[in-house]
Amino acid sequence: MISQPRLDPQSEVPLYQQLYRHFTELIRSGSLKRGERLPPTRELAGLLGLNRTTVSAAYELLEADGLIAGHVGRGSYVTGGETPGVEGLNWSAILEPVAASAAQPVVAGAISFAVSRPSEDLFPVDDFRASCREVMAGADFASVLQLGSPGGYEPLRQYLIEAAQQEGVMRPGDDLMITSGCQQALDLVRGVLLRPGDRVVVEEPVFPGLKNLFVKGGAELVGIPVNADGVDLLQLERALAKAAAKAVVVTSNFQNPTGATLSRDARTTVLRLARAAGAALIENDIYGQLRYEGAPVPTIKQMDETGDTILLRSFSKISFPGLRVGWAIGPRAFIARMMEAKHLSDLHSDQLSQAALLRFAVTGRLEAHHQRVLKSGAERLAATLTACQRYLPEGTEFTRPQGGMNLWIRLPEPLDTGELLARAQREGVTYLPGKYFSVNRPQPGALRLSFAGLEPAQIEKGVRILGEIFSSELERLRGAWNREPVPAMV
Amino acid sequence: MISQPRLDPQSEVPLYQQLYRHFTELIRSGSLKRGERLPPTRELAGLLGLNRTTVSAAYELLEADGLIAGHVGRGSYVTGGETPGVEGLNWSAILEPVAASAAQPVVAGAISFAVSRPSEDLFPVDDFRASCREVMAGADFASVLQLGSPGGYEPLRQYLIEAAQQEGVMRPGDDLMITSGCQQALDLVRGVLLRPGDRVVVEEPVFPGLKNLFVKGGAELVGIPVNADGVDLLQLERALAKAAAKAVVVTSNFQNPTGATLSRDARTTVLRLARAAGAALIENDIYGQLRYEGAPVPTIKQMDETGDTILLRSFSKISFPGLRVGWAIGPRAFIARMMEAKHLSDLHSDQLSQAALLRFAVTGRLEAHHQRVLKSGAERLAATLTACQRYLPEGTEFTRPQGGMNLWIRLPEPLDTGELLARAQREGVTYLPGKYFSVNRPQPGALRLSFAGLEPAQIEKGVRILGEIFSSELERLRGAWNREPVPAMV
Repeated sequence: MISQPRLDPQSEVPLYQQLYRHFTELIRSGSLKRGERLPPTRELAGLLGLNRTTVSAAYELLEADGLIAGHVGRGSYVTGGETPGVEGLNWSAILEPVAASAAQPVVAGAISFAVSRPSEDLFPVDDFRASCREVMAGADFASVLQLGSPGGYEPLRQYLIEAAQQEGVMRPGDDLMITSGCQQALDLVRGVLLRPGDRVVVEEPVFPGLKNLFVKGGAELVGIPVNADGVDLLQLERALAKAAAKAVVVTSNFQNPTGATLSRDARTTVLRLARAAGAALIENDIYGQLRYEGAPVPTIKQMDETGDTILLRSFSKISFPGLRVGWAIGPRAFIARMMEAKHLSDLHSDQLSQAALLRFAVTGRLEAHHQRVLKSGAERLAATLTACQRYLPEGTEFTRPQGGMNLWIRLPEPLDTGELLARAQREGVTYLPGKYFSVNRPQPGALRLSFAGLEPAQIEKGVRILGEIFSSELERLRGAWNREPVPAMV
Repeated sequence: MISQPRLDPQSEVPLYQQLYRHFTELIRSGSLKRGERLPPTRELAGLLGLNRTTVSAAYELLEADGLIAGHVGRGSYVTGGETPGVEGLNWSAILEPVAASAAQPVVAGAISFAVSRPSEDLFPVDDFRASCREVMAGADFASVLQLGSPGGYEPLRQYLIEAAQQEGVMRPGDDLMITSGCQQALDLVRGVLLRPGDRVVVEEPVFPGLKNLFVKGGAELVGIPVNADGVDLLQLERALAKAAAKAVVVTSNFQNPTGATLSRDARTTVLRLARAAGAALIENDIYGQLRYEGAPVPTIKQMDETGDTILLRSFSKISFPGLRVGWAIGPRAFIARMMEAKHLSDLHSDQLSQAALLRFAVTGRLEAHHQRVLKSGAERLAATLTACQRYLPEGTEFTRPQGGMNLWIRLPEPLDTGELLARAQREGVTYLPGKYFSVNRPQPGALRLSFAGLEPAQIEKGVRILGEIFSSELERLRGAWNREPVPAMV
């Protein structure tokens, strides 16, 4: 007997996975016993009001797990779960719940605006090959392959320290450590700084990797709306005045997902407010080097006379995200704690990539690539803005970033980007709906367009398709509104 | 005015760091104000009964932090802390405490038995260069550099899956994921499985990376003594019967630090006991391929009919620890959770090393290297055992591993390996004292010798020096004992 599963179409967990988990629990708990028959996919789909492919996908996962076996024409039977005589673990009772991930299914052949990453076609593969060859020819290559240090591959660390000192983002009381990308830096900051229940002030919308990480760590997130000029300073002041926050995380340049940049004055204010509130200030600046127009603004870290700001940077966005090399700069005592945490988390970051990226940087190849990336990024951003202006329905709002990889779109009501995603994917375009980025405020009409990985022609085509879908859906929904009976006035 | 610092000579935190932290807090909190003079190093050393170099080391850190400045002949003055008008963060109030790390200061030129790692001199650098060149020549090299997946670089993942299926350690309900070494696999297991206060059964002694990781995660560790045949089964049974444990972590082959291996029967018993207790069983097998003598024993994972055991392996010990590539095999539902946790922790592991190691493995170069490592490991283990037999004082006990990189020594009472370390380092030899490995039972007379990274001649010399130190200290202490006045019999 199959009990009615509790399926939540609003959840970030796809329906087929919810169904799969439901059956896994029934089988593991013994409610569905070995030999029992599962309803045919068509029948169950009808019963639950689901698409038949959703049910099939769930059954496929169960079969891959060895929990059921399908016989053509005879339906599927429970084969796993409690094997007679050998009692397995009840994993669903043992496992801690984790925050749902925003990982999107990869849609083959689609024009994907879903991932904030650089274009593979622009990778200077020959230059990087040369850098690797030079590293391999070095007399100390064996030491690159030997066990390293939690702080990072020392020659790279020293190179980054010198660069940071010259730029003025590193003071005498500061230290620098290598992390496995910016995501790990955030995870280490979380581990060193936060206890469950601590309040953390973040931007809203904010990228899922930050939101889910802190939520998983038990933090109470306070989202401060991001406008064209970055985080809303008045709301930040109110939020910090209202209750103690342990940390404030801001993106100074080309925020993900909005593309917003904090003005110089705004940076000063953020620093003052965070300092007055006694909260640690984390400045995420992984997009900072991708400025396509306008004058650069000093980082908050640079303006911070006490040196307490923690600055996060990475090679991922300006070179190769498949190599996981980022870094954190902050007060020596704080970085020492982060290094201890990293030692326990994964000993140290991979050294081959650190050595190769160092060579890529010191030879000037990184800067040459950087110039090409800036040129192409500017073109892609321009193509995106033009296409948005041209194709998106009237009443749509979108940001106009000065750099980075993302812009943020708000469609007119009552469009719901989460609901529209499946249709877009069927028509060959994918994006991340606003709900993945929301902290305290739902963002049903919003979506992120990550444009850096696509050529201008693809961008134009993709936004055109989206525009057609959004416009036709808007027409349909507004037509339906108009057809609703008008209530009597009383 | 300097208050008397609370310094703990028994702590794993070196004294100079304790002193540094003490002063940092005094300065940050304003107890020591800008312009105040610190006592000269010689004076403070005398006051606190410390070595003068300890005080100097602490002052150097404070100076590097910009908190004090030294003037030759005039002593050191407080320069940092609360700068007038700009109030810094009180980091000592903000930071969460973390477990002390067992990171040892690197002693230049010393014969180091302190690190469980392979010898750099044996690295087949040319073979690895060839593997890298082949990866770089591949048509899909750009995709290696592009953003990857939390589960790992897919071609490597598929290769490991096939190998695991052939070996019989992977069942139809299992999945496999790449981790940044075995340490990260343990960290992900911890994150997915454990809540603060959960009991985890581990071996005692156990390597610090495991102990500190779980302690930091708030777990209550129960240490089960390890004998020559591995974990004590009777005590394991009692511990599991006494209170609910969430997980049991065992090393089936050549445990770190004892080198002990579980017999086939013992593996069956461990599996049965863990299963009966409803605890997750984590089998750490990173040393398994380093068997120098005796017949291989199937892994617990292989014997586990329910497939619930989680098996951890790594390339680190059999190839290059500077490349952070390990993997975990376990029930699909569990691995899915680990992947979600990894996604939040660092997105995915570095792909350049994954691609290079795949090439190194599929070309047979890894296996050729493996054979050379086995030969050299056997020689180094034999040299260690011979030297221990020859040079260590009478009454010393040491393990006789069949493989791996470590053996465990218990010196006769009242020798304390923690106290003796400084003397050994002065005489050019270093090791890890037993206290770093203890869970519930102090191990003052024990030490770990990690022999794999040293040539037989160095091993012989190093153990000879240790033997001389231990013997002379034993003589001195026993002499002192004998000179103590005999109390009157009453």
